[in-house]
Amino acid sequence: MKIAVLPGDGIGTEIVAEAIKVLDVLDLPFEMENALVGGAAYEAHGHPLPEATLKLAKEADAILFGAVGDWKYDKLERQFRPEQAIPGLRKNLGLFANFRPAICYEQLVGASSLKPELIAGLDILIIRELTGDIYFGQPRGRRTAPDGAFAGAEEAFDTMRYARPEIERIAHVAFRAARKRSKRVTSVDKANVLETFQFWKDVVTEVGQQYPDVELDHMYVDNAAMQLVRAPKKFDVVVTGNMFGDILSDEAAMLTGSIGMLPSASLNASNRGLYEPSHGSAPDIAGRGIANPLATILSAAMMLRFSLNQPRAADRIESAVKDVLASGLRTADIWAEGTTKVGTREMGDAVVAAI
Amino acid sequence: MKIAVLPGDGIGTEIVAEAIKVLDVLDLPFEMENALVGGAAYEAHGHPLPEATLKLAKEADAILFGAVGDWKYDKLERQFRPEQAIPGLRKNLGLFANFRPAICYEQLVGASSLKPELIAGLDILIIRELTGDIYFGQPRGRRTAPDGAFAGAEEAFDTMRYARPEIERIAHVAFRAARKRSKRVTSVDKANVLETFQFWKDVVTEVGQQYPDVELDHMYVDNAAMQLVRAPKKFDVVVTGNMFGDILSDEAAMLTGSIGMLPSASLNASNRGLYEPSHGSAPDIAGRGIANPLATILSAAMMLRFSLNQPRAADRIESAVKDVLASGLRTADIWAEGTTKVGTREMGDAVVAAI
Ligand SMILES: CC(C)[C@H](C(=O)O)[C@@H](O)C(=O)O
Ligand SMILES: CC(C)[C@H](C(=O)O)[C@@H](O)C(=O)O
Repeated sequence: MKIAVLPGDGIGTEIVAEAIKVLDVLDLPFEMENALVGGAAYEAHGHPLPEATLKLAKEADAILFGAVGDWKYDKLERQFRPEQAIPGLRKNLGLFANFRPAICYEQLVGASSLKPELIAGLDILIIRELTGDIYFGQPRGRRTAPDGAFAGAEEAFDTMRYARPEIERIAHVAFRAARKRSKRVTSVDKANVLETFQFWKDVVTEVGQQYPDVELDHMYVDNAAMQLVRAPKKFDVVVTGNMFGDILSDEAAMLTGSIGMLPSASLNASNRGLYEPSHGSAPDIAGRGIANPLATILSAAMMLRFSLNQPRAADRIESAVKDVLASGLRTADIWAEGTTKVGTREMGDAVVAAI
Repeated sequence: MKIAVLPGDGIGTEIVAEAIKVLDVLDLPFEMENALVGGAAYEAHGHPLPEATLKLAKEADAILFGAVGDWKYDKLERQFRPEQAIPGLRKNLGLFANFRPAICYEQLVGASSLKPELIAGLDILIIRELTGDIYFGQPRGRRTAPDGAFAGAEEAFDTMRYARPEIERIAHVAFRAARKRSKRVTSVDKANVLETFQFWKDVVTEVGQQYPDVELDHMYVDNAAMQLVRAPKKFDVVVTGNMFGDILSDEAAMLTGSIGMLPSASLNASNRGLYEPSHGSAPDIAGRGIANPLATILSAAMMLRFSLNQPRAADRIESAVKDVLASGLRTADIWAEGTTKVGTREMGDAVVAAI
């Protein structure tokens, strides 16, 4: 089995190095191959997602991804900016199912913006559709407005679209995930305004009939953004479209206060997937050896479980991370009075030792 | 001058009655005329926004709006559902500029989900474009997918669109508002993915050059959803499109923990406007006399200031509300140990007395 390793930019290289250390110590039968992505790839090959990288990603059974992006590329034309590698990989590999857990670790309750009683024990799974919606819908562009109140003016436009099979497959993913958890799914839409999301709601409801043991409810996206703040623990599995999922999964992650701990997985129909931390490339702290590698290490655990069929190895990583937290080690982002501040490498070493 | 009074459904009638009491005691020279809207209008006339209501709204100098919606209408075809009156009024009256303050009152810090130090003193103004974007963009509908990976399948679609003049005018509103505040504007977009919001960002930047004294920054919507949770006080004026504004303004309102206190204004080019509380119709507590009328009373104050040119009367209402809070009166939604719980009517009476 083959893992494509795409460290990317900023802290990406530092955190991926720690995840690799952890994978190495498990001594499992797979090969890893590195490739450039994002700004690093643009520098070397003039494109954030070069052909060779895409080829490797397509061949691999799983992709371990760090992070991409740096302010220094802000002035580039959009297609060359580092983060364009992300939708490119998703679309080309058909990674339609994004799993974004928002978990609040017992020892890190204090890091949250929320009052402890609201956040302690949080364990939500946001399932975001990742290859459709307004992210990829054609037509899009700039033009002279052909009609409407501003006909004749310069305008820009995008198309939000969802086809029935796209909604069906992500709904199945959500219902199946809910069966392994508390058997509740909240589907987030904007059916009161958008044709696309009235259709979304209808199709999710239909699919839900095949899962009579799972409770399904529907919530408007504006209300979901509120309820996440008011009472996040009321959610369990949340399923939504690409655009709303982008916003809500980031909101939910930040609620925990420890986004540096949160992994993510993006899977295709055959369970191949891309695994990456929920946080970004943090160019402000890159190269200083202080980034938190745990989200990436936990992403590697998700990779072992979902794509590489090594659930026990995944368990070992996850309990090692818990042990390390229990021992009081913390990187700067989650440090608090009374705990021991460590750097990226020391944190990785501690996980290796705990395994 | 004429105020159209549209109480609507649920708690709408109860809270608007208190705002009227407050307006009455100010003894100002305007006429008020009531009309049905939402579910109440549907029951009486078969449509949530009947012709007569729209006519009154168009003639009036300002509209005082309660709330619309009830679960009992959930099964109606979309066009007949109560909340369809809202986009209908906005579009027909050209109410493109929505002002949604998110303010945390000193005495209500404890009602927030957030830790007191993060929320105390919060005073953000979210300016949401309200008549464009994917809310109204044509074409939209259901069809057989004409192209793409799911060509031939059933699909639904919507169109996100913004024309240059639409972006320009809302940007001017934001910069002018910022001049009266801390001279900072954050424009929220998704320029890394959407053509519409790359254009938004470009046009806002251009308009910003006419306001060299105002600092402009740009933030992606997913990041904004996070930063609102992490450090809401870093924001001052936020300007964004209709869809993102819907989500972020609700998130920001809920952060305060006292959405029952938050007014809103939706203005057109000639400063006529619709004024409504930021919260909804709360059918679960309707008719029980326990709803908080303060958001509606404060909306009436905004109406006096923005549309009726009565800034001193507006000040009087706002300081009366502060006095009432200071005296310890609270409706159930904002009640806490050590304060006095009162009903809707008592709260309205207290504001009248304080004036
Ligand atoms: C970089 C960007 C295109 C991407 C997105 O919007 O999907 C990112 O925000 C994410 O959520 O992974
Ligand atoms: C009722 C609905 C159409 C409306 C919107 O989405 O704009 C509401 O959520 C609001 O924010 O006023």
